[in-house]
Amino acid sequence: MLMNGEQYIESLRKLNTRVYMFGEKIDNWIDHPIIRPSINCVAATYELAHDPEYADLMTAKSNLTGETVNRFSHLHQSTEDLKKKVKMQRLLGQKTASCFQRCVGMDAFNATFSTTYEVDKKYGTNYHENFTNFLKFVQKNDLIVDGAMTDPKGDRGRSPSQQDDKDLFVRIVERREDGIVVRGAKAHQTGSINSHWHIIMPTMAMREEDSDYAVAFACPSDVEGMYMIYGRQSCDTRKLEPNADMDLGNAKFGGQEALVVFDDVFIPNDMIFLAGEHEFAGMLVERFAGYHRQSYGGCKVGVGDVLIGAAALAAEYNGAEKASHIKDKLIEMTHLNETLYCCGIACSTEGWKTPAGNYQIDLLLANVCKQNITRFPYEIVRLAEDIAGGLMVTMPSAIDFESDLEVGRNGETIGEICNKYFAASPKCTTIERMRVLRFIENLCLGASAVGYRTESMHGAGSPQAQRIMIARQGNIQGKKELAKELAGINK
Amino acid sequence: MLMNGEQYIESLRKLNTRVYMFGEKIDNWIDHPIIRPSINCVAATYELAHDPEYADLMTAKSNLTGETVNRFSHLHQSTEDLKKKVKMQRLLGQKTASCFQRCVGMDAFNATFSTTYEVDKKYGTNYHENFTNFLKFVQKNDLIVDGAMTDPKGDRGRSPSQQDDKDLFVRIVERREDGIVVRGAKAHQTGSINSHWHIIMPTMAMREEDSDYAVAFACPSDVEGMYMIYGRQSCDTRKLEPNADMDLGNAKFGGQEALVVFDDVFIPNDMIFLAGEHEFAGMLVERFAGYHRQSYGGCKVGVGDVLIGAAALAAEYNGAEKASHIKDKLIEMTHLNETLYCCGIACSTEGWKTPAGNYQIDLLLANVCKQNITRFPYEIVRLAEDIAGGLMVTMPSAIDFESDLEVGRNGETIGEICNKYFAASPKCTTIERMRVLRFIENLCLGASAVGYRTESMHGAGSPQAQRIMIARQGNIQGKKELAKELAGINK
Amino acid sequence: MLMNGEQYIESLRKLNTRVYMFGEKIDNWIDHPIIRPSINCVAATYELAHDPEYADLMTAKSNLTGETVNRFSHLHQSTEDLKKKVKMQRLLGQKTASCFQRCVGMDAFNATFSTTYEVDKKYGTNYHENFTNFLKFVQKNDLIVDGAMTDPKGDRGRSPSQQDDKDLFVRIVERREDGIVVRGAKAHQTGSINSHWHIIMPTMAMREEDSDYAVAFACPSDVEGMYMIYGRQSCDTRKLEPNADMDLGNAKFGGQEALVVFDDVFIPNDMIFLAGEHEFAGMLVERFAGYHRQSYGGCKVGVGDVLIGAAALAAEYNGAEKASHIKDKLIEMTHLNETLYCCGIACSTEGWKTPAGNYQIDLLLANVCKQNITRFPYEIVRLAEDIAGGLMVTMPSAIDFESDLEVGRNGETIGEICNKYFAASPKCTTIERMRVLRFIENLCLGASAVGYRTESMHGAGSPQAQRIMIARQGNIQGKKELAKELAGINK
Amino acid sequence: MLMNGEQYIESLRKLNTRVYMFGEKIDNWIDHPIIRPSINCVAATYELAHDPEYADLMTAKSNLTGETVNRFSHLHQSTEDLKKKVKMQRLLGQKTASCFQRCVGMDAFNATFSTTYEVDKKYGTNYHENFTNFLKFVQKNDLIVDGAMTDPKGDRGRSPSQQDDKDLFVRIVERREDGIVVRGAKAHQTGSINSHWHIIMPTMAMREEDSDYAVAFACPSDVEGMYMIYGRQSCDTRKLEPNADMDLGNAKFGGQEALVVFDDVFIPNDMIFLAGEHEFAGMLVERFAGYHRQSYGGCKVGVGDVLIGAAALAAEYNGAEKASHIKDKLIEMTHLNETLYCCGIACSTEGWKTPAGNYQIDLLLANVCKQNITRFPYEIVRLAEDIAGGLMVTMPSAIDFESDLEVGRNGETIGEICNKYFAASPKCTTIERMRVLRFIENLCLGASAVGYRTESMHGAGSPQAQRIMIARQGNIQGKKELAKELAGINK
Repeated sequence: MLMNGEQYIESLRKLNTRVYMFGEKIDNWIDHPIIRPSINCVAATYELAHDPEYADLMTAKSNLTGETVNRFSHLHQSTEDLKKKVKMQRLLGQKTASCFQRCVGMDAFNATFSTTYEVDKKYGTNYHENFTNFLKFVQKNDLIVDGAMTDPKGDRGRSPSQQDDKDLFVRIVERREDGIVVRGAKAHQTGSINSHWHIIMPTMAMREEDSDYAVAFACPSDVEGMYMIYGRQSCDTRKLEPNADMDLGNAKFGGQEALVVFDDVFIPNDMIFLAGEHEFAGMLVERFAGYHRQSYGGCKVGVGDVLIGAAALAAEYNGAEKASHIKDKLIEMTHLNETLYCCGIACSTEGWKTPAGNYQIDLLLANVCKQNITRFPYEIVRLAEDIAGGLMVTMPSAIDFESDLEVGRNGETIGEICNKYFAASPKCTTIERMRVLRFIENLCLGASAVGYRTESMHGAGSPQAQRIMIARQGNIQGKKELAKELAGINK
Repeated sequence: MLMNGEQYIESLRKLNTRVYMFGEKIDNWIDHPIIRPSINCVAATYELAHDPEYADLMTAKSNLTGETVNRFSHLHQSTEDLKKKVKMQRLLGQKTASCFQRCVGMDAFNATFSTTYEVDKKYGTNYHENFTNFLKFVQKNDLIVDGAMTDPKGDRGRSPSQQDDKDLFVRIVERREDGIVVRGAKAHQTGSINSHWHIIMPTMAMREEDSDYAVAFACPSDVEGMYMIYGRQSCDTRKLEPNADMDLGNAKFGGQEALVVFDDVFIPNDMIFLAGEHEFAGMLVERFAGYHRQSYGGCKVGVGDVLIGAAALAAEYNGAEKASHIKDKLIEMTHLNETLYCCGIACSTEGWKTPAGNYQIDLLLANVCKQNITRFPYEIVRLAEDIAGGLMVTMPSAIDFESDLEVGRNGETIGEICNKYFAASPKCTTIERMRVLRFIENLCLGASAVGYRTESMHGAGSPQAQRIMIARQGNIQGKKELAKELAGINK
Repeated sequence: MLMNGEQYIESLRKLNTRVYMFGEKIDNWIDHPIIRPSINCVAATYELAHDPEYADLMTAKSNLTGETVNRFSHLHQSTEDLKKKVKMQRLLGQKTASCFQRCVGMDAFNATFSTTYEVDKKYGTNYHENFTNFLKFVQKNDLIVDGAMTDPKGDRGRSPSQQDDKDLFVRIVERREDGIVVRGAKAHQTGSINSHWHIIMPTMAMREEDSDYAVAFACPSDVEGMYMIYGRQSCDTRKLEPNADMDLGNAKFGGQEALVVFDDVFIPNDMIFLAGEHEFAGMLVERFAGYHRQSYGGCKVGVGDVLIGAAALAAEYNGAEKASHIKDKLIEMTHLNETLYCCGIACSTEGWKTPAGNYQIDLLLANVCKQNITRFPYEIVRLAEDIAGGLMVTMPSAIDFESDLEVGRNGETIGEICNKYFAASPKCTTIERMRVLRFIENLCLGASAVGYRTESMHGAGSPQAQRIMIARQGNIQGKKELAKELAGINK
Repeated sequence: MLMNGEQYIESLRKLNTRVYMFGEKIDNWIDHPIIRPSINCVAATYELAHDPEYADLMTAKSNLTGETVNRFSHLHQSTEDLKKKVKMQRLLGQKTASCFQRCVGMDAFNATFSTTYEVDKKYGTNYHENFTNFLKFVQKNDLIVDGAMTDPKGDRGRSPSQQDDKDLFVRIVERREDGIVVRGAKAHQTGSINSHWHIIMPTMAMREEDSDYAVAFACPSDVEGMYMIYGRQSCDTRKLEPNADMDLGNAKFGGQEALVVFDDVFIPNDMIFLAGEHEFAGMLVERFAGYHRQSYGGCKVGVGDVLIGAAALAAEYNGAEKASHIKDKLIEMTHLNETLYCCGIACSTEGWKTPAGNYQIDLLLANVCKQNITRFPYEIVRLAEDIAGGLMVTMPSAIDFESDLEVGRNGETIGEICNKYFAASPKCTTIERMRVLRFIENLCLGASAVGYRTESMHGAGSPQAQRIMIARQGNIQGKKELAKELAGINK
């Protein structure tokens, strides 16, 4: 059963998720103006699945059940599936210009599926069956599941078990016959509040002494002992302003991050996917990160599409669209954005089949993809700000544009004065011009800059993490041999 | 008489400046939380002038009166003065991490002084005397004067007189025996509200048919018919939150822009510096822009210093300061920042004496300076975001960190949980770590990003404006001759 | 029948190709030291086709004959074929570190095949059959065919028929019953001398008045009236030095360009593929250029692999391989190189089936690919020069290293002194260190820099050509609509 | 007495300098076609000193003798002198488009002058007097002196005294009453053969065990036991071709590097400037390197000027000079080049007076200057190659352009065919077009690329050396304090 957007939103109302913001418990977080745009984003992943135009991208036939499922819950069965994933993400980026939050779950599904298979093979555990059953349940109910990896980490110079405060990485504090009790927190959790369930994974490769930290499992959002503290974003409270619209830039959609706390949460045996097999923590992390670095080659490209469009629109509304330097900057933005897309597509089509049967992306190229993501969106933003002009950050508030307060010698209102002096091309109204500038502001330094810039930098691992992987995967030794052969160095 | 910061602030209270924000008239704008940080910034230019350590940079001996004046009111008497200007600006950038708003006036003084001299020489007008008297008055009273150049401009494809709405550039609507009446507006006016007086200049070279637009003059902030509409910035309303401090990043200082409207303002003859001599509009613009492009090689470098320091601090507080890639990124930030400084210094030391006697910067190098300013701060910001980590945009609000609301099984409060899970290096408290991250957020995508990023892009002219000047000043023809000589092409 | 390298070289001896170099006719150009390395490169495309390890990449089953053919003569039957093309090119780049010259033919085959189909469909001509028969002949005899596009062009401001000298673009000067006579020249012809046959194509979209220039055909290298003037490369005459080896850097392989002159060459009807249908010139150019821009995402990546390996080897031989900045530069080189590969792969896997049945690459992504090729190899070269150190360009000649001339107080020879003072890491001999440095010199500023740098810049079209295509293909209008929707601008 | 160019060349004939090239002793190296262009370059430093137009830049009044001396032999007496040094270097770069080799001596003079002063002050040695006398002799005779720093260095992981072969750094092998005997070599010695004398300096900071390596002294080029082995450059042997002209690009000027061997050379006491005071080796290196990093902000900018001019000329000759992308690339080249100049000027004007009385540049800014030099010339080259077009590396040889060999049906010669098909804009002859392309080739990948690219990378220290200095000089601690103050972190 594929939910639509409305059904998804209603389904959230049944959850007793504990959410805190600005020092208070938010009971109706579903309709909270700061949170709602991020829920709308997730809803779009449901809604588009019902649009026949996008059915091929948005849905897939489950290899587990044979049913049609939302692609976000799908195990990739081919490199074609991997490419469609990226295209679906670009589509959603185009439709929301935001982080739609459902990728972490998809990436967690695929990484956990193949890793648990290999753990079981070595240890005779039944994590793979646990996980497969869980995923069938997810697919059947069309649930959204947060994939949680990043621990707070404390002192970066020490391993989990060496921390003064042992809780700075999620860990098993008690092993019972019927399950485990876990404690700790996951930071920067994108979409955690909007999810029905969560898959928790370790955050790095572990050694034996850190075995209690090598833990993966699933739990519902309102499991006892779990709660979330909302992270604040640039310009977040603009959403609380009366009749907030234009000044939001993107009034409908947005992103969300939270700290998710596990305050001695009990996890029953059938929801456990790793519990101490420390040498598999690294595989799970690497596979998840690989998928997630691929993801950015789709979603951020989609957001980039919208920003390029907005910059082109701003140029037109400013009356400058024919200047050769403007055209050239739009070309450069397009060039950079499509280069990112190339990386997303390439690491997909070069994917490979895991022993468990689903498809994994090419690790080298996925890391190259993400590394570029930590650079090009910043340059795209810079060019957008160049094209937009300074008015983007110096224009009065939306309230001024609508104000009836008389200020001029002839009784002109603030609104009239604003509309008079910020008029530009006859192709648009002043308000339309302002709207597109606010939209660009939102992506460049407002709430959506969190998703388009900072998340591009640190999501799925900070830049240096990719460089380490590129070094490992780059086969420098083989390249040296090529050079030796041609340079006539025979050893 | 050199005012101190407190005296400056008190002096503002005597003005009846009309200010509108969010659709309302702000009577006590001096103590308004959104405006006050920008006033504090200006106050710093007064306060530091009393610090003996900085006297050499902050003050100068007036060539007009022989008195010690704030360097911001000084006519540059040498290339040494030009260099000190840049160093003063770097100092103030370091002390405020904001735009301190007083440079436009200084740059307007110097450009108007030399241009009026040349207008008078040609036309026998007495603008130079008018201006010199005005500047003596400014120096004597240690006033801050806004230098206003940028008109709204309307349709970019048409000249001022071709616009449907003739008011889209400031113009003379009436010439009387005792003065002129002007109408129009100036957009993006940095520091306009915090200024005692204003110098208005044309925004571009003009042709004969635009003579009414070739107008320059001075007027006080509360002259009849003038009013200002405040521009909103990213995260502006955080300043309105109760006990706002940490979440502001930089609680004390900030910048300000406004739309300044001239609603038929009368300007008496002795305050007029240009009134129709259209062929001098270009000279005034070029000289002002030249000075102002130099300015950015000081002020933004100072802000860059603080951002580099903040990134280094964040690395230390994260426990990552010894990683070689972190060190290398700090080196790169320093390298870029000092390259900007080199440009600011070079265009100063290569300055030249105008016929009027004050010193003008080297035009080619000043444009090169500003062009780099439209690029490097963006890369410095990108690297700062890289070093800071994602927590900068996902951490809960300051209110959460101080909240007593109990949420944990053992009665832990939200504040305790936040402090527990966001702890990192033992070298700092969690709050100190959060403070530096919020500070970086402020400069990278908060209110100060308006000054550090967008203003770097568009202030003193957008990037393309510099490229046009570089093309004009680059002497391509001479360079071709050099190549011909060496390539043996003899024509 | 697949020739091997030796058979290919022998097959050239049967041709009476007219070649001029340094003002002289070169009769035995096959064994000429300046030309031979480029022949060896082509030979590698034959030789590797016999290596079972590479059979899947190097060969394919012809859709025309069902026989196994060298992939360079293959019509791409799927996106998989397009990807294999890129991988074959990367392989050959790795094995030769040079331009192996056979791609232009392959790209010409595929572009001509699909374009002639569409011409015939419109005009009822039989170009497609002509071409198909020709290609069968090529496949059957495993011939190498030069694909020639770039005319000398004369005054860039005028169309072909507007030139003072009408021959500056290849054109039909006579139409006979049995064929046509063509005159003109093609410049920069890579591999022209080493080819058995040539396919000539127009160089740009044409208008009606340029119909005589809208001509495509095939002819053998030694057709009457055709001759070639060899282009000189950096360091070309090092190949003429006695016992030339080390100073060549890459002693075995190299590239080749020539001016190919058509001095009234008769082309029989069955070798004509276009003869006046001017509106199809643009399609042929665009398709050929598209394939060829894809090609660079393979071949230059392969060369990049070797250069990265050589830089790593130089670092090791210098004793600096453990420095973190060296490691980081190698990572950056790898990152850039793999980004190029991503583009090559992506435009392949996103290819589409033409009406004629073969597969064409994605045009937008192929142009993005080539645009990056005009940038990244230059940065890879810069980093290689950084790692190599200055000795690369200051070391004495190979003759010095082997000289027995006594120069030292104790009878040390020049050779001994060179070997003594240029010794570094104990991991290698001095000569090995020198060899790798000369190899890098060759790619960075020697003969191979022509292929790795300048050809990356201008081959398959100069950078601006790609930008024009990116503008056309980037769907800015669609992107504007996305932005309007989200910014709430409803028109 | 200021020699002119001719006198300088004649003065070289009196030297018995031992020079080896291609395994042979070159007796008349002064007229050797490969070496002569580099001698012409040095001669230009003499010749221009007699041009009244440049007297202010090219000469100075000696503080030692009161006489007018060539600025290359001058001790900088002010920051104005430091700026004039940079301007002189830019001028010479413009006039030669090559490395004119005389800067190392000038930089060695100034560094040795101030360092010996401080050594003497601590140890009561008389190195400063030795050096001052030597410099008077140099000034009086207008000599050119090579400043030699870079040792071969052997295994980069070991200090001088730890090397297996102790000679891999220049060292004292014997201390006599009347002087010392030194052994070793200096690599990459720019202009060594063209110099009358040499100043030898240590290559890095030394520890006590390396005291024998902490040695500085002067000796004539033909001192007994000293000889030089010439380094080969890209395209060097083109200079040996008959009537070589066009294919050289720059027929008159060029650069030179050699290995200089000290085969037990005796140095009398009065020519010793350091002999074991190991802790001053670092100061001498740092000061010399500082001056030399400043130098590049002059000389390479001058070469850049010519390359920009050549690219503009190529665009004009190609008929493409009006394309907006061409104009924009020329602007970018100019912008980058002037940014380098800003750095050269800024580190000069921010110089400081040493205890010995001469002026030293600002160390941080000089390192920033050189760091940019390791980047921007490469981008300028890339843009020049873009503008020039591929013909630069595919055109036939000059011999072909002049060949009378008939090849055409109507008796056209090779020369006529070349001139016909490579014609472009009517503004120039084909040969003029070819000349400018060959000139660009020379700077981008021919012999002059050694000076413009590789020397920009490694001369005066490789990029990482500057980064280490930037880290040391960047005052990160002070910047952290600025951030703490503003972020409200009070420790």
